[in-house]
Amino acid sequence: ARVACVKTPSRGGYPALVPVLVLLRHGESQWNLENRFTGWTDVDLTAKGEEEARAAGKLLAAECKQAITVVHTSVLTRAVRTANLTLEAMGAPWLPVRRHWRLNERHYGALQGLDKQDSARQFGKEQVKAWRRGYATPPPPLEAGDERHPVRDRRYAMLDPEVLPSTECLADVVRRLTPYYQDAIVSDLRRHPAVLVVAHGNSLRALVKYLEHISDEAIVDVDIPTGIPRLYELDERLVVQEARYLGDPEAARRASESVAKQAG
Amino acid sequence: ARVACVKTPSRGGYPALVPVLVLLRHGESQWNLENRFTGWTDVDLTAKGEEEARAAGKLLAAECKQAITVVHTSVLTRAVRTANLTLEAMGAPWLPVRRHWRLNERHYGALQGLDKQDSARQFGKEQVKAWRRGYATPPPPLEAGDERHPVRDRRYAMLDPEVLPSTECLADVVRRLTPYYQDAIVSDLRRHPAVLVVAHGNSLRALVKYLEHISDEAIVDVDIPTGIPRLYELDERLVVQEARYLGDPEAARRASESVAKQAG
Repeated sequence: ARVACVKTPSRGGYPALVPVLVLLRHGESQWNLENRFTGWTDVDLTAKGEEEARAAGKLLAAECKQAITVVHTSVLTRAVRTANLTLEAMGAPWLPVRRHWRLNERHYGALQGLDKQDSARQFGKEQVKAWRRGYATPPPPLEAGDERHPVRDRRYAMLDPEVLPSTECLADVVRRLTPYYQDAIVSDLRRHPAVLVVAHGNSLRALVKYLEHISDEAIVDVDIPTGIPRLYELDERLVVQEARYLGDPEAARRASESVAKQAG
Repeated sequence: ARVACVKTPSRGGYPALVPVLVLLRHGESQWNLENRFTGWTDVDLTAKGEEEARAAGKLLAAECKQAITVVHTSVLTRAVRTANLTLEAMGAPWLPVRRHWRLNERHYGALQGLDKQDSARQFGKEQVKAWRRGYATPPPPLEAGDERHPVRDRRYAMLDPEVLPSTECLADVVRRLTPYYQDAIVSDLRRHPAVLVVAHGNSLRALVKYLEHISDEAIVDVDIPTGIPRLYELDERLVVQEARYLGDPEAARRASESVAKQAG
């Protein structure tokens, strides 16, 4: 028998894949509910957040045009558990999942744990708005000796302490997340028909900025709804051709607006 | 400042770690409950099986002498979900988990799905005993065209179809699992203080045979209880120094006996 020779556009001998990339923001966590700044604090999902994850899984199983075969997520429990529950609802709990700190939420510095209303009273409404919405304005840092500092969390024990933040602005998140997209996620996009990234409001904002070439000024007003998968059609060079939310477009629009109102 | 030079026994420049290896067998699945041969059929845990996973996580958090920092499991839902639930109960859902088909349960061929009592009536008690307890006696294979054959399951789509079994005896499981231990698990034992492997009655039996140098004749009578972590102390060359079950030793003994009575 002769082996058929299939002609495909070549990338140094690799076949050309035209993959899709899907972003998913985890649903409600305990501190979303309590209106507190979360950042790297490792709070769990609420029952509503778990239900959002399952609904996203059902939507992906029904509507994602190519099969998801690999998943990336952060090392924060609310994203890890969202990924687990989403995969279960997709009927594919066995898919490979890669967990990495570079997909973590923006570190919120000394604001972590504070009630959002209280902090507006304490620091002034304009100051808090600048921390929440300024592209390059980090909140006050956690002190190095603070017991909540990531250097004291065993999940980061294998890392160079130099990379662990005490606070971050969105620009910092873009800087630490971009190398992970370029190395780990792109390498999977070259081998998989569809890659799912389950992460957080601000780490996904950083990724959307990179993918869609959004300016520093405009990105702070981009709001990604929770629990609604955002699908990117890419070309062979992994350039975005089209982006859309799965499911009802009107539901996605309403969810973005509702997130914008309480965002930060 | 001078950099301190720490003297450790050398393995070609790598520091000597003295790791521990922990094995965990998933708890009750739907077909355990229904007394049916399962093999590679992807049945889920029962509520009791989920509880066994959480109890194992609590035991590991309380009693494992070194911190588990990486997990290996199969690509079958009952093991994947056991690993997820165990990690959640340990307070470390974010640990890296590697899922691999070589840790799957023994493939039970055409017996998969049959009631254990019914198959004894159909094939004769002695024949079924030989399939269940013979080291080198595979059950009748699934036909290549059978819709249950692993070549038709998308989770194996990236593999060479040659490696996908139609049936397996325990000797086959030893052959396909050993390379994964030697390459993937050993490589993690060289870098992590403790490695957890969450798998199945017969894939763990194959691993125990390799680790403890148990003969072909004796291994078929080794019964690993569900939900009770088995901890191996290794030396620097990864040779087993001691093996024990965590928790109450009497509970582990009773659980092994109860598994032996209904095993297969």
